[in-house]
Amino acid sequence: MDKGYLENILKSVSTGRASVEDALNTLTHMHIEDIDYAHIDHNRSLRKGFPEVIFGEGKTAGQIAGIMGKMAVQEEIILVTRVDEAKAEEVLSGFPEAVYYNDARMIVRKKKDILIKGRGKILVLSAGTSDIPVAKEAYITAQAMGNEVDSVFDVGVAGIHRLFDHRKMIDDASVLIVVAGMEGALPSVVAGMVSRPVIAVPTSIGYGVSFGGLTALFAMLNSCSSNVAVVNIDNGFGAGYMASIINRI
Amino acid sequence: MDKGYLENILKSVSTGRASVEDALNTLTHMHIEDIDYAHIDHNRSLRKGFPEVIFGEGKTAGQIAGIMGKMAVQEEIILVTRVDEAKAEEVLSGFPEAVYYNDARMIVRKKKDILIKGRGKILVLSAGTSDIPVAKEAYITAQAMGNEVDSVFDVGVAGIHRLFDHRKMIDDASVLIVVAGMEGALPSVVAGMVSRPVIAVPTSIGYGVSFGGLTALFAMLNSCSSNVAVVNIDNGFGAGYMASIINRI
Amino acid sequence: MDKGYLENILKSVSTGRASVEDALNTLTHMHIEDIDYAHIDHNRSLRKGFPEVIFGEGKTAGQIAGIMGKMAVQEEIILVTRVDEAKAEEVLSGFPEAVYYNDARMIVRKKKDILIKGRGKILVLSAGTSDIPVAKEAYITAQAMGNEVDSVFDVGVAGIHRLFDHRKMIDDASVLIVVAGMEGALPSVVAGMVSRPVIAVPTSIGYGVSFGGLTALFAMLNSCSSNVAVVNIDNGFGAGYMASIINRI
Amino acid sequence: MDKGYLENILKSVSTGRASVEDALNTLTHMHIEDIDYAHIDHNRSLRKGFPEVIFGEGKTAGQIAGIMGKMAVQEEIILVTRVDEAKAEEVLSGFPEAVYYNDARMIVRKKKDILIKGRGKILVLSAGTSDIPVAKEAYITAQAMGNEVDSVFDVGVAGIHRLFDHRKMIDDASVLIVVAGMEGALPSVVAGMVSRPVIAVPTSIGYGVSFGGLTALFAMLNSCSSNVAVVNIDNGFGAGYMASIINRI
Amino acid sequence: MDKGYLENILKSVSTGRASVEDALNTLTHMHIEDIDYAHIDHNRSLRKGFPEVIFGEGKTAGQIAGIMGKMAVQEEIILVTRVDEAKAEEVLSGFPEAVYYNDARMIVRKKKDILIKGRGKILVLSAGTSDIPVAKEAYITAQAMGNEVDSVFDVGVAGIHRLFDHRKMIDDASVLIVVAGMEGALPSVVAGMVSRPVIAVPTSIGYGVSFGGLTALFAMLNSCSSNVAVVNIDNGFGAGYMASIINRI
Amino acid sequence: MDKGYLENILKSVSTGRASVEDALNTLTHMHIEDIDYAHIDHNRSLRKGFPEVIFGEGKTAGQIAGIMGKMAVQEEIILVTRVDEAKAEEVLSGFPEAVYYNDARMIVRKKKDILIKGRGKILVLSAGTSDIPVAKEAYITAQAMGNEVDSVFDVGVAGIHRLFDHRKMIDDASVLIVVAGMEGALPSVVAGMVSRPVIAVPTSIGYGVSFGGLTALFAMLNSCSSNVAVVNIDNGFGAGYMASIINRI
Amino acid sequence: MDKGYLENILKSVSTGRASVEDALNTLTHMHIEDIDYAHIDHNRSLRKGFPEVIFGEGKTAGQIAGIMGKMAVQEEIILVTRVDEAKAEEVLSGFPEAVYYNDARMIVRKKKDILIKGRGKILVLSAGTSDIPVAKEAYITAQAMGNEVDSVFDVGVAGIHRLFDHRKMIDDASVLIVVAGMEGALPSVVAGMVSRPVIAVPTSIGYGVSFGGLTALFAMLNSCSSNVAVVNIDNGFGAGYMASIINRI
Amino acid sequence: MDKGYLENILKSVSTGRASVEDALNTLTHMHIEDIDYAHIDHNRSLRKGFPEVIFGEGKTAGQIAGIMGKMAVQEEIILVTRVDEAKAEEVLSGFPEAVYYNDARMIVRKKKDILIKGRGKILVLSAGTSDIPVAKEAYITAQAMGNEVDSVFDVGVAGIHRLFDHRKMIDDASVLIVVAGMEGALPSVVAGMVSRPVIAVPTSIGYGVSFGGLTALFAMLNSCSSNVAVVNIDNGFGAGYMASIINRI
Repeated sequence: MDKGYLENILKSVSTGRASVEDALNTLTHMHIEDIDYAHIDHNRSLRKGFPEVIFGEGKTAGQIAGIMGKMAVQEEIILVTRVDEAKAEEVLSGFPEAVYYNDARMIVRKKKDILIKGRGKILVLSAGTSDIPVAKEAYITAQAMGNEVDSVFDVGVAGIHRLFDHRKMIDDASVLIVVAGMEGALPSVVAGMVSRPVIAVPTSIGYGVSFGGLTALFAMLNSCSSNVAVVNIDNGFGAGYMASIINRI
Repeated sequence: MDKGYLENILKSVSTGRASVEDALNTLTHMHIEDIDYAHIDHNRSLRKGFPEVIFGEGKTAGQIAGIMGKMAVQEEIILVTRVDEAKAEEVLSGFPEAVYYNDARMIVRKKKDILIKGRGKILVLSAGTSDIPVAKEAYITAQAMGNEVDSVFDVGVAGIHRLFDHRKMIDDASVLIVVAGMEGALPSVVAGMVSRPVIAVPTSIGYGVSFGGLTALFAMLNSCSSNVAVVNIDNGFGAGYMASIINRI
Repeated sequence: MDKGYLENILKSVSTGRASVEDALNTLTHMHIEDIDYAHIDHNRSLRKGFPEVIFGEGKTAGQIAGIMGKMAVQEEIILVTRVDEAKAEEVLSGFPEAVYYNDARMIVRKKKDILIKGRGKILVLSAGTSDIPVAKEAYITAQAMGNEVDSVFDVGVAGIHRLFDHRKMIDDASVLIVVAGMEGALPSVVAGMVSRPVIAVPTSIGYGVSFGGLTALFAMLNSCSSNVAVVNIDNGFGAGYMASIINRI
Repeated sequence: MDKGYLENILKSVSTGRASVEDALNTLTHMHIEDIDYAHIDHNRSLRKGFPEVIFGEGKTAGQIAGIMGKMAVQEEIILVTRVDEAKAEEVLSGFPEAVYYNDARMIVRKKKDILIKGRGKILVLSAGTSDIPVAKEAYITAQAMGNEVDSVFDVGVAGIHRLFDHRKMIDDASVLIVVAGMEGALPSVVAGMVSRPVIAVPTSIGYGVSFGGLTALFAMLNSCSSNVAVVNIDNGFGAGYMASIINRI
Repeated sequence: MDKGYLENILKSVSTGRASVEDALNTLTHMHIEDIDYAHIDHNRSLRKGFPEVIFGEGKTAGQIAGIMGKMAVQEEIILVTRVDEAKAEEVLSGFPEAVYYNDARMIVRKKKDILIKGRGKILVLSAGTSDIPVAKEAYITAQAMGNEVDSVFDVGVAGIHRLFDHRKMIDDASVLIVVAGMEGALPSVVAGMVSRPVIAVPTSIGYGVSFGGLTALFAMLNSCSSNVAVVNIDNGFGAGYMASIINRI
Repeated sequence: MDKGYLENILKSVSTGRASVEDALNTLTHMHIEDIDYAHIDHNRSLRKGFPEVIFGEGKTAGQIAGIMGKMAVQEEIILVTRVDEAKAEEVLSGFPEAVYYNDARMIVRKKKDILIKGRGKILVLSAGTSDIPVAKEAYITAQAMGNEVDSVFDVGVAGIHRLFDHRKMIDDASVLIVVAGMEGALPSVVAGMVSRPVIAVPTSIGYGVSFGGLTALFAMLNSCSSNVAVVNIDNGFGAGYMASIINRI
Repeated sequence: MDKGYLENILKSVSTGRASVEDALNTLTHMHIEDIDYAHIDHNRSLRKGFPEVIFGEGKTAGQIAGIMGKMAVQEEIILVTRVDEAKAEEVLSGFPEAVYYNDARMIVRKKKDILIKGRGKILVLSAGTSDIPVAKEAYITAQAMGNEVDSVFDVGVAGIHRLFDHRKMIDDASVLIVVAGMEGALPSVVAGMVSRPVIAVPTSIGYGVSFGGLTALFAMLNSCSSNVAVVNIDNGFGAGYMASIINRI
Repeated sequence: MDKGYLENILKSVSTGRASVEDALNTLTHMHIEDIDYAHIDHNRSLRKGFPEVIFGEGKTAGQIAGIMGKMAVQEEIILVTRVDEAKAEEVLSGFPEAVYYNDARMIVRKKKDILIKGRGKILVLSAGTSDIPVAKEAYITAQAMGNEVDSVFDVGVAGIHRLFDHRKMIDDASVLIVVAGMEGALPSVVAGMVSRPVIAVPTSIGYGVSFGGLTALFAMLNSCSSNVAVVNIDNGFGAGYMASIINRI
């Protein structure tokens, strides 16, 4: 529930356009809305500053559209993650104003342009070509939450000079998101170059003893640089979310 | 190398009190200083905003004192982590102005009072009594890096009302550090209550399938709240460091 | 073999309607019946108070129907778990009186209405939308075994107030089944609120370091609340069964 | 806080012996008492029906005695688990009325005889000689919580006839606790013999691929009997606690 | 290479029907025959008493038939394991005298009836219905290697009386193969009843913490009975082979 | 209970030297004898052909002596495994006729010379010097159970020619026990050379990714030779036991 | 970027055929070329002596062809690994001069014949038939990098005499690549026979506790021979690459 | 057995100073010498170019000295690894000409100066101060095997500029040994800078999810640079050995 939406209801009450009973009813109803397969937590955008995000994996297009429909009344912005192309097409048929980002596998639906609320720039770096989908998920999330975002992809540690070519961009960022699979070494190297917080995202890219991202995850948690904290494997969304709220402090 | 220390050298040059050759020599020498068992990275406090921190585990009291001696010339503050009481006593005999924090197992040595540089307050929460040493390590680190810090210990999820008793302190924090062993559930619950970034620290407390902190770590990485990022098991220092640089953005 | 069924045979003998030889023959035959691919343990409902339950995974519709046919003669109720829709349809063509529960993936076939034998109410709670199938399996099982059952779904710890909205229902339950994937924190929180036994069921919901339910399992076994015991990952049936026999003590 | 203790305070108020202010003060103070290293949850015995149990591992004798001192005023019974002999001796010097159980490594301190509150008998079975300490922890806990308890030790599956020698005791129990290390097979066999709930406790006994109890734990969670739920490795206390509250339903 | 086949060649030489050069050439050629995708080890049946067995998984029907063709000249018996129905049909079109065992997924091709060479009887026991394919693989292998073999399926430990119903068969066996998934408890119980060697075979049957057979494997290796040795998960063939050579000592 | 001992009792009854009541009493009492910390299974040597073996780890010298005392009346031979030197000395003070084998860490106590009951020779091979204690445990056990035993130590695969130097001994054995740590390759190589059963014993020797014997264990279970079965890590006793009963078939 | 190609540009400048600006532009542009989904590191063949190799897995035929097109201008040789047949056909339609190696799943495209740069011969050995694809990947890579290469396949340790038949070839190699799945024992045995470096490649061949190659990997890292180093599971390309640069020292 | 030593014996025979029988006897005896707890493989230095190295862990000072005594007659150089200070002192009392390297925990005993046999320089790099013992083990080994060796310690990726300060030394090396614990990122970065082979050595340095070196090991095996091969955790000796034989090709 967007703050503006709530303000309108309260103003209606104060000006007599709505009775106290009606407003109470609306607000109570909105608190948590039960649509059989989900408890929608409308209170969340007030409490947390951003509405609940819909995790698309394991939900049908119909369920996603159903939840979006309920949220659309009250929220300025709706994010859906982990949606494949076929499902997205079906969802978008009912929300033609929403946009599907193919590489990030996300749907974004906004009522108006997003205001920049972040203090500085967020920079998303990725080690390899195959890490791009996760990096894009972080990018789109951070942008949708009101931040200026930059990105540099395919700058892994096997050719460290490629990283140094982007030195200025790295120095200028206020928060960095570093995405890497395989040996997961990039966050340590980047964090050693800056004094800003680095959110490290391991990806499931690799084979053999990459263990679907575990090796990268453990390497990042063992980083010899102290300005690193880590999110779950392939969790680009979580990294974008965390970077955003850091950027607003 | 503290910025003020560098400024003094440069001023000496500009006013003719020191020759260019001497200054060059001093600065080059300072860049990285080799004392046989360590490359001291004096450049670090310039580059990262805080000097290198001495990891005490596996170093003798003599080695710790040796590194402290080299750093003491140029740094305003020196932190040593993971030092047991006996070793600390030996180190402090040479640095009587330094302070040993028994529960956090840390030595702090400062030249003058620490200036508050953080924007808001950092809050350290711990789930159990046994998690306190790790929580204290985070507390002392955040304080030494120039932040106001509060703490509440022993508020685990088995008695969730204890947590709600501290609701105001939780709402007022700009960054939260949440320390928990065993099932590691506290960060999820706390992060669900606030819109601020939460740094989660798993501890090695527990037995059986706690796996020395792994279960808590994985639970935290799986948090259903998005404003959580995680550091290594028992890494209170890293959490305090990360929270500090977030609090300065 | 239902107790009533056995009673009938014995009465026939005592009244002379059946000879001792015939009865002996019938009972011996019933003890364990071999239908090539299974030893049906007819003695079980006498020994354990509930007939053997058919685990549908890895059995063909024909095999399931075959076993059901043998059991139908003697048992009041038959449960089949882990049956997908296509297989269920095939099975039900021969047992039109049986019911298929789509979300729980179970078939229930009963001769008459189930008598309530449990002392109190069993409550099934689930953390997320995706945990519902496992929760429903527990629900249907507990109901089929003669209990009053209630349920609340999607009350995970990231929005802990949703849980408190159902406080009364939680306080009134005599046994609680708590189903959760990801970080598996819900059982600890719920168990801290009540003095009743909590059966925790980890689910395979999650990604990355959720390890197909292992993280939730280990978190539950590490619960800082003592009134928690745990069953295998996704084992909703086992939790429903265990809760039922606890509710009858 | 024992219910009787609370009743006394309230009666004092109602009869004018204590002012409302004093009573309020006493009760608020008692709610949660902070003794620096612990938040004592006096409210717990009201909420959960049994006071908080002191986990002795990692606490000094002084800390244990300190917590016991605070609890002794208000609680009828106090349990301390995982206390070695030396520590116990030190604690008991201040509480001569308390008893130390050497094999269970527990301290029990009670004000008066424990009333039997359980409906039936609890039976504790253990597979091997080395599992006895864990089995005894379960035994003492269940007894202290007001149950009649029986036990049979060293009846592992390699000599299954030893188990059948105790058939009657097994059939008569209302709840069974089965303790086993190594291959952890005993709970499955026992649960197959009875219709009552079985709480399985894996122990860390074994070598090689026993993995400190993990193999036994996983075997128990995979039990082909449905009336089994499991607690953490070596958690005799938890099993005794869980069996007790089941026995009271 | 069957011993009889070799004898014939040598006799031809001794009687002058074949020259030394020809015989030498034949024997050398036979030693190891290279058919591009395999080194066929014809020497093996001499050295080991049984020809190489063809592991069907990952080989095409064409490759299997190719190897069988080369072996058919010299070997009395050929076994192929892990062949699905479609592939088997294709292979059998070229070897109409061979037999495909559907449940064991094996092809057996023999020139004449197999002589019984084993001293006693081999007994194959399986815990559940789903373990039957692995049990059958052991059965067919032991039979093909010249042993009398008996079997009892679906006698798991959850209904231990089913096992005792077969007591005589168990007592009479000279070697026992015990196949079980899930908690893998059956070999321990059976081995406790007999003085003969037990070959335990874990199967990949189960879910959750059965870990595709690992839990059963580790339970079997931890058996508290000493007359148990273990083979790889689902390795029915290996168990049948090992039991056979034990039965011949 | 030795068969001869039983025979004596029965003869006393048949000749009237003992009453039926007395004999019954003696035999019942002997069945399973409870000495507080253990159920001694006297029936075992009748049922299994060899008395229970005392696992010394985790038992005090007093407990070991106590069990030996009870067994000594009825058994021809007593084995104790995993006893360190100090404990052994204490035990032997009460059983001067017993022998302690330092490298195998075993105590053997026999009433008279052991009869050879095995058909052929058992050969114990070990890969490295550090594997000798486990190999010796197997050696002593097989010898004590009435077998001729040979051994060759330190013939690992890094110098495969050392193995071939002992070809004749390898060919002559009826059962082979192969002990190896680190990469655990020796059993595969040896099993490829013979047609006899090979019992493989992984040891905990190694460092890094030897994982205390797990790597050797898994390598052995994956052996490309089919005449291999495996026992638990460091379980020399189990291998000696298994080889013995194989050798008697 | 091939050295010859660079030389041509520089000669053009020195002879005036190209201006300094043009050459600078060309070289800068070549350094790293961004084609949206990849940073092509043209500098690599200068720095590392061999151009970047295209990892085909997870790339579309179009992306592979796109990268090949950019590289083709400047490189003498292009390797693509992990390409299935369908994809390869599509790629080759645009590069008819390139060759697809079916068993190694590689594409090789060369401008002219490869010069032999290696000092000695590289020998590729594989343990089983199923390991051949990985062995062939190593073979083709080493050949493409300018080495004489030999190979022997299917010489596993279960028939060690097959290995000794190739003794001369083994003794003559300057570097050996040994490929094995299952128990991974072959590298240890081979390394024990030679004084040359052995690169061990574990493969994912096996079942049960082969863990997709982990057991072979750990066995190889534990090799009791010291002249062994290991690459990732199934990484035939890496082994061929490493052997090549060793062979050039 | 040193080649010179063998030459002397043969010359004695050819000149008649020794009889053929004596020489034969000496040589046969030398082949493999059995000193009860070890088979000394005197043939090894002929076959492999370097004598067997004594792994000191788990051997007593007496055993080490015993083996050294046997080897000293025939070998030019003897290496002992993993010897602590106390044990070394005891060993050196009998071999005063041997040298103990405290940080590498090695004993080196040589008859004369070591000839340089390697083609180029070997460079040993380590990431942290705590990795130095492993790095020194590699250093001493490579030196003892006849190579020029350089080293740079404490150049981890958190301060990547420290690495670039040593660029020339890195470019000049013919083989590189890179030692790192924690996240194990250094080998990837270094290998990306050079065209020479890199032997990566993971160390057990770290805490939490460093898993005693496993994370570093897996990161190194996942290196995105192809010129990397890996040895076991903490195996500095193996890396030095492997680098030496590479350097001789």
